[in-house]
Amino acid sequence: MDDVVPTVAVVGGGLIGGSIALAARRGGAARVLLTDRDAAVRDRARALDLADEVVDDVPGAVAAADVVVAAIPSAAVAEVLVAAARHAPRGAILTDAASLKRAVTAEVTARLAAEDLAPGRYVGGHPMAGSERNGPEAADGTLFQGATWVLTPTEATDDAALHRLSALLRGFGARVLALPPDRHDELVAIVSHLPQVVASALADVAADVVAASGEVVLAVAGGGFRDTTRIAASDPDLWVPILSGNRTAVLEALDHYRGRLDEIRAAVAADDAVALRRVLDRAARARRRLVPKAQAAEMVDLVVPLADRPGALAAAATALGAAAVNVEDVSMRHAEAGDRGVLLVRVAADTAARGRAALVAAGLAAHVEPVASDVD
Amino acid sequence: MDDVVPTVAVVGGGLIGGSIALAARRGGAARVLLTDRDAAVRDRARALDLADEVVDDVPGAVAAADVVVAAIPSAAVAEVLVAAARHAPRGAILTDAASLKRAVTAEVTARLAAEDLAPGRYVGGHPMAGSERNGPEAADGTLFQGATWVLTPTEATDDAALHRLSALLRGFGARVLALPPDRHDELVAIVSHLPQVVASALADVAADVVAASGEVVLAVAGGGFRDTTRIAASDPDLWVPILSGNRTAVLEALDHYRGRLDEIRAAVAADDAVALRRVLDRAARARRRLVPKAQAAEMVDLVVPLADRPGALAAAATALGAAAVNVEDVSMRHAEAGDRGVLLVRVAADTAARGRAALVAAGLAAHVEPVASDVD
Repeated sequence: MDDVVPTVAVVGGGLIGGSIALAARRGGAARVLLTDRDAAVRDRARALDLADEVVDDVPGAVAAADVVVAAIPSAAVAEVLVAAARHAPRGAILTDAASLKRAVTAEVTARLAAEDLAPGRYVGGHPMAGSERNGPEAADGTLFQGATWVLTPTEATDDAALHRLSALLRGFGARVLALPPDRHDELVAIVSHLPQVVASALADVAADVVAASGEVVLAVAGGGFRDTTRIAASDPDLWVPILSGNRTAVLEALDHYRGRLDEIRAAVAADDAVALRRVLDRAARARRRLVPKAQAAEMVDLVVPLADRPGALAAAATALGAAAVNVEDVSMRHAEAGDRGVLLVRVAADTAARGRAALVAAGLAAHVEPVASDVD
Repeated sequence: MDDVVPTVAVVGGGLIGGSIALAARRGGAARVLLTDRDAAVRDRARALDLADEVVDDVPGAVAAADVVVAAIPSAAVAEVLVAAARHAPRGAILTDAASLKRAVTAEVTARLAAEDLAPGRYVGGHPMAGSERNGPEAADGTLFQGATWVLTPTEATDDAALHRLSALLRGFGARVLALPPDRHDELVAIVSHLPQVVASALADVAADVVAASGEVVLAVAGGGFRDTTRIAASDPDLWVPILSGNRTAVLEALDHYRGRLDEIRAAVAADDAVALRRVLDRAARARRRLVPKAQAAEMVDLVVPLADRPGALAAAATALGAAAVNVEDVSMRHAEAGDRGVLLVRVAADTAARGRAALVAAGLAAHVEPVASDVD
């Protein structure tokens, strides 16, 4: 019962705030209140039933809160959390979801201390999940499942606040990772801000080519281009302050990146296949290592021949769900004309025997196969 | 009946060859034969029932073929297609799926001409679809649905070969885009080869950070990093020959890219929010233009009287391709004896004016007509 959080107040009804409200309702909170300074967003949040109650202002939202989450632009976090602290119970935990932590953590802590508002209950946070979509309509209560949620406690942070907040976030399905604020900002420069610049520069090259010689370049673009540029579609209004606010670390990451790019360029220019292969191979191995541990579990395929029977796929999926087997991927192998084909269900190897037994119990044939190699 | 392709022979039983065989069975071909020089791949293809018949060698596969597709590494294409031409009916269309088109097209055409094997029936091809999976088990008959399939006809290409092959590929669900071989190679340098280098350099930076300070950077990496580096995990053995073979265009694309990257770096370094916003916004708008068009677009016909001039269809098709006009359908209206007739090119209505202008610029007459209704 230690970990029960009776009341969560979310300030901000956008993608992240709305998703936090929904996640809190799904797991861990008895009551969820939401507010947004924009009345239209409040109306949309109400219509979407994102929270138990959508209220008009911060004091109303936080009056009985155990945890207050500010899911709003960085520049507004300190002001809103100080206002919340004035109106919330003195034991309420305060957190935020801003993309940079060093400056926000220092400012919130200093301002709470200056007003004797118990600064130790503030724990900076940053969920490493998102979407190129925006607004309350994009809210998704499963957004944080399996995602890392960085918390940035300092020496000033109360142990109990960190403990209870971590438990709440684990209830969202998130994996909590505690880092000092400075370290967080250095790491996101590499794995978040640098990719944004890299993707934007690539999309900008395509924009130049479109301007110079028409849209044919976009017609030729396949999945690789789409993936590599996806985040370039993100809202510039979000990214300008992030890149500016983390300027030193971003420039360092960019210079590191340009060095690697130049190494590849030199190998191509010299037609040095050995050097080129060395870099590409190092990168390929790195990318394969970057698979998070939870997803790096050995995978196998459950091979399920589907008879020509209505509902066979649904039966297979629900049998696996009832046996608590997570389905990592599903594909169909269409064998012969007229045949329903073969269903391939990718699962963690350590759940395969349980999954197979569940399928057999549901009257389906199933066997386990190693995953087909990525390389011929 | 014009568009029926009775027999398709596929050489190569990997992801692309297997998918072509399955797609041909689903739509457009009466009979599909497959071969692979590797007996183990042939056995797997047989077990997976990828084709009506899996045969042991190229002569056996192509003996009665109407279309021969070589879905094999670039270096082997010319040899295999010349061998196929020696054993296939003289009217059989020859095509390939190699990632670069300039050198392959020139070599195949020259070698077919040297042996008097009717070089006009060769049409280079490159389906802009793939998967991180490989091998016959990854074959998917729906892989090309909605994908662009570039064809690279030249002045030497027979109109009939281009016409029939386009119809077959549309039967796969692909959108056919005709481009000169050189132009294809320039464009893929930007939308395929450059993203590969960009992603590899980024993964390589992360590898350095892991080496220097541990795996925590992996835990912080979210969806943006994963998307932007996904293709870095690709097989270096595939990429070294592509980057080397398209060296000049790749270097040009890389230099263009570095210019854009430097522009962003300068804006960050100067803390120039206006300049930074301008670049990010331009990139975001470019990326958003990639969203596929609604499939219910209104269609019209471009009506192109073809003079009795070899290669007129290729000229029309490449002119439309260069203007990024997807050809949804092609038919011929044979007006008078002795006349080459009139070409009807079905295109989306919102691309018709652009397409007509491109045809006129290429020296062809063209006008736009509503699609003839089947029902009054």
